[in-house]
Amino acid sequence: MSFQKLDELGHRLEALEHALAILGADEATHMAVGGGDKRAEAMGTLAGMYHRQATAPEIADWLAAAESEALSEEQSAAIVEFRRHYTNLTCLPAEFVERQTNTRMRCEQLWRDLRAKNDWAGFLPALEGVIALAREEAAMRADVLGVGLYDAMIEQHDPGNRMADISPVFAELKSFLKDFVGEALAVQEERLAKRRLKPLSGVYSIDKQRELGLAMMAAVGFDLSHGSLSISHHPFCGGVPSDVRITTRYKTTEFLSSLMGVLHETGHALYEQNLPKQWAHWPVGKARGMAVHESQSLFVEKQLGRNPAFWQWALPIVEKHLGEAWTMDDIIPHVHRVERGLIRVDADEVTYPLHVILRYELEQDLIEGRLEATQLPEAWDAKMREYLGLSTIDNPADGPMQDVHWAGGAFGYFPSYTLGAMMAAQQWSALTKSHPQADEDIARGDFTAINNWRRQNIWSQGSRWSTPELLLRATGEKLNADHFINHLRTRYGAA
Amino acid sequence: MSFQKLDELGHRLEALEHALAILGADEATHMAVGGGDKRAEAMGTLAGMYHRQATAPEIADWLAAAESEALSEEQSAAIVEFRRHYTNLTCLPAEFVERQTNTRMRCEQLWRDLRAKNDWAGFLPALEGVIALAREEAAMRADVLGVGLYDAMIEQHDPGNRMADISPVFAELKSFLKDFVGEALAVQEERLAKRRLKPLSGVYSIDKQRELGLAMMAAVGFDLSHGSLSISHHPFCGGVPSDVRITTRYKTTEFLSSLMGVLHETGHALYEQNLPKQWAHWPVGKARGMAVHESQSLFVEKQLGRNPAFWQWALPIVEKHLGEAWTMDDIIPHVHRVERGLIRVDADEVTYPLHVILRYELEQDLIEGRLEATQLPEAWDAKMREYLGLSTIDNPADGPMQDVHWAGGAFGYFPSYTLGAMMAAQQWSALTKSHPQADEDIARGDFTAINNWRRQNIWSQGSRWSTPELLLRATGEKLNADHFINHLRTRYGAA
Repeated sequence: MSFQKLDELGHRLEALEHALAILGADEATHMAVGGGDKRAEAMGTLAGMYHRQATAPEIADWLAAAESEALSEEQSAAIVEFRRHYTNLTCLPAEFVERQTNTRMRCEQLWRDLRAKNDWAGFLPALEGVIALAREEAAMRADVLGVGLYDAMIEQHDPGNRMADISPVFAELKSFLKDFVGEALAVQEERLAKRRLKPLSGVYSIDKQRELGLAMMAAVGFDLSHGSLSISHHPFCGGVPSDVRITTRYKTTEFLSSLMGVLHETGHALYEQNLPKQWAHWPVGKARGMAVHESQSLFVEKQLGRNPAFWQWALPIVEKHLGEAWTMDDIIPHVHRVERGLIRVDADEVTYPLHVILRYELEQDLIEGRLEATQLPEAWDAKMREYLGLSTIDNPADGPMQDVHWAGGAFGYFPSYTLGAMMAAQQWSALTKSHPQADEDIARGDFTAINNWRRQNIWSQGSRWSTPELLLRATGEKLNADHFINHLRTRYGAA
Repeated sequence: MSFQKLDELGHRLEALEHALAILGADEATHMAVGGGDKRAEAMGTLAGMYHRQATAPEIADWLAAAESEALSEEQSAAIVEFRRHYTNLTCLPAEFVERQTNTRMRCEQLWRDLRAKNDWAGFLPALEGVIALAREEAAMRADVLGVGLYDAMIEQHDPGNRMADISPVFAELKSFLKDFVGEALAVQEERLAKRRLKPLSGVYSIDKQRELGLAMMAAVGFDLSHGSLSISHHPFCGGVPSDVRITTRYKTTEFLSSLMGVLHETGHALYEQNLPKQWAHWPVGKARGMAVHESQSLFVEKQLGRNPAFWQWALPIVEKHLGEAWTMDDIIPHVHRVERGLIRVDADEVTYPLHVILRYELEQDLIEGRLEATQLPEAWDAKMREYLGLSTIDNPADGPMQDVHWAGGAFGYFPSYTLGAMMAAQQWSALTKSHPQADEDIARGDFTAINNWRRQNIWSQGSRWSTPELLLRATGEKLNADHFINHLRTRYGAA
């Protein structure tokens, strides 16, 4: 039976993914500094084994045969995802993939060096090389998938998402935010005029902050018998569903940014820990994609963690661990701080989408050939001035050189961040419709009903549905900007 | 060129070994408790991939072809080890290996449970199953290798070692120790009568003990940029040569046992860190075998770490980290403590060899069919009474159920421990012949010349030579008991 062969292949691929995931997490947390070269060599070789096994020509025959076998409903769902993976992995020639990998890696290395030096001219030729290959990639993928060029790239991160659906929603959000950022800043200024921002600074040992983080993780549902918290330079959620590795970094002078980071990664971790275990070795058992994943991290960080109800419950826990008796009036202005800035990763939830929409618009033009890399500094600056009133023209390091994504060839990824924020708001809205006392739950630190809703509607579904279908089934609505806009208005707007 | 194919195979196998080594070390140190099932599944699948790739039939053709190619001297040496590995991996049918793995794993699991309950009768049938398969294994290996049954098992751990060479040396050592244990105990008693043993107990935080351990590791040559120290339930040395993971366990009431454990594992680690890097992906680039490995750990633990000169240097460092000003008269009686006991892993360097020789004698009889598992409790007890004057007849948990080795089918492994101790003494003797001021070096904490000798004679040689040949080349002598006996006499004997 061909399904059986695919099932066995799934176990082999799962073992290699397990090794790559743990080796990757280990590299960022526990590896000796001198172990990097051999680690890179081993992971490269294992990734090659994975690719060779996952793209073997006989799989095409197994898929074709399995599709006409009598299968259970879940086996049929598994086959759909097996085929999607196989198509995406095999639609680029091996020679092209190798050339692209080398070009991207060289450009990423160059980026690390030249961003620090603000050297756009030095970086440009390498970026042009990556863009040229990304255009080739988009053309090949679009041809196989029967979709548009940029849609073919989005499909790699968020299966089923299409520009035709996203662009109008982003347009509405952009038009709202271009005014609303000013409103939110004015509201904030008015409040701060009445009551000055009280710094949360002090001395908070890493041990105490770690205990606080673990307590919060456990409270919001993280299963500490299937995961752990470590330290790394850049926070991440890695590992495998049976052993999810999340990380943070600490400053001993300030606790809030680390704690919010822990909550964000905990959101990713809850998704991984609660994926359907019986499908763990099938593609359909994996998380749906980047936008849904980000919706889960932002749900915990923004919908729960920046909800004032959360702090009613959390402040005594903070006090217990750090010995500081903050009041709601002390903490909320920090949790809801809004600021116009140049840097996406430092942005708050009000300004963040503008950073993303800027990139979404520019990368479409790049992929579809309407914009060249040489024109990026001006194009970036024009949008930055229009959306946030800031200029980057003399500062490409904080303009088009700001993120590693393009250097690494990850076009079509950026929209996931804001789609995730919108989907989180839409999920919260649906959840509170069926469970209106969610805020009271949070204020008591009871996340049971909230997590049950998420488990049933998101986590347990794995990759059963396309990104838009998963959202529709969970919330009863297609993706739209209403819930996120309402969320921002309520939290940040004038009364 | 066939050598090239073997070279590429070596890189693939090295990547899988890297994954298995890091996943194994991670499991014992950082894995979430609930991650074990999936980890076992992933490691089992990866081990299967390793086995399938390492035993592919075409490798036989590559080896035959490479052996007649024009090769450099080091390539020729590489081929010898490639062939040895291939022969050892392929001389058992896959069906047999699978059956044996299952039988061993079941017996090990049973052992964990039944040893705690001292239930020999419950354990016996499982052990009989393992022994029956070990006899089959020995017969098949002996046939292919053209050696005796037990020699075929020793060969898996220490290539080139043969009973004909070991047994006379063990016989001499046994005959010496049967009297000498009493002498050493009498000497100790006399000394303790003059000066009571001063307990080294106190409160030593894990953090401080860890810092002390790291300082000692670095001082004796551990490269902290290519390795690390963690905590695990059972101390071990794992990981890969570019990132050696050693572990210890701590009691906060006592520091010496943990520190000696760290020194022991550091000895293993120095060997791994200093193997020839250019051969890392060839079998010839790996450590020679268990006896040589143990000679390296015991060299650091016993020849260096229990040398009084070592403590002249180490006591101020201990004081710096733990705040305790012990004198030489305080510490040496602990470092040189001798005690007749039932348990091998708790034994000192005087009594330890008798534990090993007992097992060496019994396992020959088991493998060669002169002894059955049912007879083990009596046979064990008889030798225990003869060698150490202790009885285990009512206590099989501390008799033949004491170690996991037999449950796990690892026959031929036990001699490595005492061969390692003898080889360490023989190396120390050769080293001090060419470098008579070694004791003064140690008393100053200068391990440069000592490590240079070891790097040149042992570490850099990888698996270039058989176990006895490596020792002969390093020390100018065949394995013999003289140096170890002299070492024990000097350290523990009557003046």
